[in-house]
Parts: sequence; structure tokens; C-alpha cells
Amino acid sequence: MRKDPVSDRWVIIAQDRALRPGAGKKVVAQKSNDAHCPFEPGMEEETPGSRLVYEKDGRWTLRVVDNKYPALTVHEPFIQKTRGVYVSSQGYGYHEVVIESPEHEEKIWSMKPQKLGEIITAYIQRSIEISCDKDIKYIQIFKNYGRQAGATIDHPHSQIVATPTVPVSTSYELKGAERYYNDNKKCVFCDILAQEESEGERIIFQNAGFIAFEPFASRFPYETWIMPRTHADSFLCLRDDASGVQNLSYALKGSFELLYRLLGDFPFNLVLHTSPFCSETQRYYHWYFEIIPRLYNLAGFEWGTGYNINSVPPEKAAYELKSIK
Amino acid sequence: MRKDPVSDRWVIIAQDRALRPGAGKKVVAQKSNDAHCPFEPGMEEETPGSRLVYEKDGRWTLRVVDNKYPALTVHEPFIQKTRGVYVSSQGYGYHEVVIESPEHEEKIWSMKPQKLGEIITAYIQRSIEISCDKDIKYIQIFKNYGRQAGATIDHPHSQIVATPTVPVSTSYELKGAERYYNDNKKCVFCDILAQEESEGERIIFQNAGFIAFEPFASRFPYETWIMPRTHADSFLCLRDDASGVQNLSYALKGSFELLYRLLGDFPFNLVLHTSPFCSETQRYYHWYFEIIPRLYNLAGFEWGTGYNINSVPPEKAAYELKSIK
Repeated sequence: MRKDPVSDRWVIIAQDRALRPGAGKKVVAQKSNDAHCPFEPGMEEETPGSRLVYEKDGRWTLRVVDNKYPALTVHEPFIQKTRGVYVSSQGYGYHEVVIESPEHEEKIWSMKPQKLGEIITAYIQRSIEISCDKDIKYIQIFKNYGRQAGATIDHPHSQIVATPTVPVSTSYELKGAERYYNDNKKCVFCDILAQEESEGERIIFQNAGFIAFEPFASRFPYETWIMPRTHADSFLCLRDDASGVQNLSYALKGSFELLYRLLGDFPFNLVLHTSPFCSETQRYYHWYFEIIPRLYNLAGFEWGTGYNINSVPPEKAAYELKSIK
Repeated sequence: MRKDPVSDRWVIIAQDRALRPGAGKKVVAQKSNDAHCPFEPGMEEETPGSRLVYEKDGRWTLRVVDNKYPALTVHEPFIQKTRGVYVSSQGYGYHEVVIESPEHEEKIWSMKPQKLGEIITAYIQRSIEISCDKDIKYIQIFKNYGRQAGATIDHPHSQIVATPTVPVSTSYELKGAERYYNDNKKCVFCDILAQEESEGERIIFQNAGFIAFEPFASRFPYETWIMPRTHADSFLCLRDDASGVQNLSYALKGSFELLYRLLGDFPFNLVLHTSPFCSETQRYYHWYFEIIPRLYNLAGFEWGTGYNINSVPPEKAAYELKSIK
């Protein structure tokens, strides 16, 4: 059993469970294979509310549009109403889709670093624009790939959801980081990076700006965190230069290439962890991207407890990733 | 948006998202269809460590055995070791399988109340026995049905995992209930039951001992809670009589029958929420069972935030369940 130093969540590393019947089979990302794709060039009228377009030679290379089936909208304000024990509100927020490329078949592991840089720049630009709305507290940027990971459209895309409250998971992570800071006067994530560098065995990729590693208390096989070396609580402050966006592009590319070589066309979620807007988290929080391969389904034990059972120790995962040719 | 009164977790109820391409299709529980089943009568030698056997007419009707691929074992003690920021221990605990019936094809929705009562009694008996181990803090009882819900074996079974720490999800739920108690001098779950009875529209089944309802801040379509009317923090104190085990059996049967009639052979997790051992939670906690239909996969947004997006309002779910013939 291993304890995550930020959240105090325990993980059970149980290698023998990989021997169960049916476990450990190769998992291929399921596609929707819809004949019709609303994200193709020429279909722009099907995607409402264009928020951002990057172009080259008169053609778009990336578009950010409103989600046609939004989880949140800005039509009504977030005003909490109480009825007995229950509190509710109209959902206020933004739900946008980043159409990453005009190429339907492009995959994140084969994208050029320049393309990844363009996507990161779009994330930052839209986040900064949305952060001007003072009724928004948090932005969640994420990418779902494969049906197992919740994707319903195959065309390469990611999503931005901006919410009027700080989500519970974020809030727990912030509290854990603040507790560590108060006890040690240091950022827990900076201490994790230092220990990862000194132990070495869980790092799979690094450059001047970022370290990609399999976390000590990995909840999932081949879970990967990509973390900036420089302490910073907000992704929005990442600089659009070699030390910032470019290094992150290469770190994303390096990590996804290794994962693809080992796991094949695997389903995954890519999830950003960053500080809420206007929060006093500068000292103790540290942003990062998390890649979660979705190789199996969570079961009742995980739902009930929040514990995870992981059948691949992160040291083994890192060794396999680094050994693959 | 609706806030869960216990955990303060927000849920986004977004009915329009049920209109997305591919959403709302009927989901059928995937089977492993293994030719060989280790839980059949005659195969008892394949399941190690028999913990409990119920018999009738010289044949077993239910067996509790050690899990062949345990997440936790009692071989080594739980002693936390610290190395820099990381804390780990040998995993200490119990991981058992309740083989609910000798009948391979039996389903929970077609079981007789007497059979369900036998399963509940086995849960309680093993929990009480394990609670004598003072190194155990919590017991998680759960059932996975269908591959989408994490099941690897088709034969009707559930599982018991006993852990040496109180899990984070349990701990958050307890803190929320304690906060409500301190503010209101009442049990939040008793207040929820009172409001559910007064509003009525989310209740799908009730008898003298239990109320089954679709919670106000349902995270999943057709999520169902089965809660005792009488305030009690621990499932282990449920009495083996008409007011206790029998009423729960009928409430489980009534709920699963409705869900089956509406959703067909659907994948699900059944998860118990109860108090940790030796905890001072009598005043403010209230045990219950939760049924989570696994009709779609969680995506990056849920992983990142802990928010859920639910496309079926619980009032609509309850109406559909009550209307089905």
C-alpha cells in the first residue's frame, strides 16, 4: 500500500491481480465510427459559437467552438436556492470543444511538437479569456480518447469546462498541498520532483522544463504525470517560449510516444490540474498534466472507498516504457 | 446544478446531453463467457480458504472464500514506512468472495427474498467476525455485475474487502455528516429521508424498514439509495428479523426488479456505506446501500473535478421506474 503525499489517499499495488483470468489483455480504443463527422473542414456550420480560430494559408488549423450539448451555459446566473436540505442552482459556465486539427485521423502520439504547441496555446488563450468572467472559479481542461474514456466523437478534440464553484477533487488536492506547506514550508510537488530525480526509477521523460514520471502512488497502470520543474500554481502563466509551451509540447510528445509504443492505440484521459482563479495558492500549489490510460473499468470497491487497486507498480511501468524500442 | 447535502459535491444535471450521438443506447452487461467457472458446485477445491458455508439438504447454498487474487492479505502487518515524501506499507487486510448461489445463471433481480436475506446475513456474519481483528478499520462490501462494472467472473458473487485505514471517500462522507450534525443537531440522512417522504417524487420503493429512492444530487442515471428508516450508523447492527434483514431483502428485490424491468440486463455496482469499526459516529452517520448502474464511462472532466454530469434527472428516473409494467 502506498499513500499519495498530496491527498493522503492510499493505493493498493497488487501485482498478482494481473494474473486474474481476462486481466492484462491489450485494450484498444473503441471508435464511434460515425459516417458523419461534425468537426471536418467544410462542416463549420454544424459547430455553433466559434470562440477561436487559428489559420495558416487561408485554412483553419485549430478551432475552439461551443459544445453543442453543453453541460453548462451562461444563460442564467449561478444563484443557490435552498429547499430543506437540498441546494441547487441553474448551471452557469462554459463548455467548449477544441478541434485540434482538420485531420480526422490524426492522433496525439503522432502530432508534431508544433501542433501540440498550438493546442496548448489555445488552451491558455481561452482560459485567460474565460478568467475575465468573475463568476467563474475554475477551468477544467481535458481530453477523452476512445469510448472507454468517454469520447463520443473520433475526430481529434479536447474540451474546456469552466465552473462557478471550485470542484471537490481540486479542493481536496489544494487542502492537502496547503497542509504539507504549513508543516514543511515547502511545496509538496517540488519535493516530489526532487525525490523523483534522486530516485530516478519512475521518470520516463525529461527536458529542461518538464519531468514526466509514473507517480509513486499511481492509481492506474501507466498513469503518467507531466510536471513543470519551475514552481508555479497556474497553467495560465506558462510562457509561450522555449522554456514554456515548447518544452511542454516535447514532454507531451515524448510521453505519449512511449505509451503508444508499449500500449498501442490505447484509450486515455488527459487531465489538467491547476489552481482556481483568484486563489491564494501561489506558495503551495503546482500545476501538472495527468495521463490516465483507461485499460479497465473501476469496480464497486473503488466507488465505495476512493482507494484504487493497481496491478502494475509504477517502477515496473516506467521500466517497460523506457525499455520499449 | 445540485449539491449533495452530505459531501458538498456538485452534480450537473444536463438532460440535453442525452441527445448526443450515441448517448442513451441500451447497455447490456458484458459477460466473460469463460467455459470454466471456479465457483460451480464440484469446483470447491479451486477456491482457497473457505470462511463460511451455508447448507441445505447436504448441499451448499452460499460460500464465503478467500479471493484467489487478493488485493490485501494478513501475511504481514500494516506498518508505515517513510522515505522522503513517500509513505508505504505492506498491505494488510482481508479480501473475500461471497459465492451467492450454486446456480451459475441466477441474477440478483430474480432471486427470492429468502436468498437475498441469506446473502445479507453472510455479509453481516463475516463483517462481525472480521471486526474482531483490531488492525482492521473498515469493511467495504460490494458487488460488481458485468464487465463494464469491473466483474471478471459471471457466477453470482459479491466481495468483502477489509482495510487497515479508513478510506478517503468514507472519511469525506463522515466529515460532511459530522459538520451537518454540529450545525443542526440532527442526522443529515434522517433529514434527507424526511424530505424524500414529504416530496415523494424520487421514491421508487418503500416498506416498514427501508426507503429506496433516486437521490436529489444523483451522480449517475438511475442511481438508487436503499436506506433504513431507523437511524443507525452501522450495517453490522442490522437485526436478523422482519424489521431488519427481511425488510432489506424486500427493498433490494423491489429496487432491482424495477431497474431490471426498465434497463434490462444492465451492468451495476452495489456498494455499502457504513461506519468504520470502533468509530464515534453513532449520532451523525447512517448506513445505506447504493446501486450504481454503469451505463457509460466516466470521462476526463469527472476525473479532474469530482463533479459528475448526469443526463437523467432523478425525478425523471423515478417516474420511469414507477411507470414501467
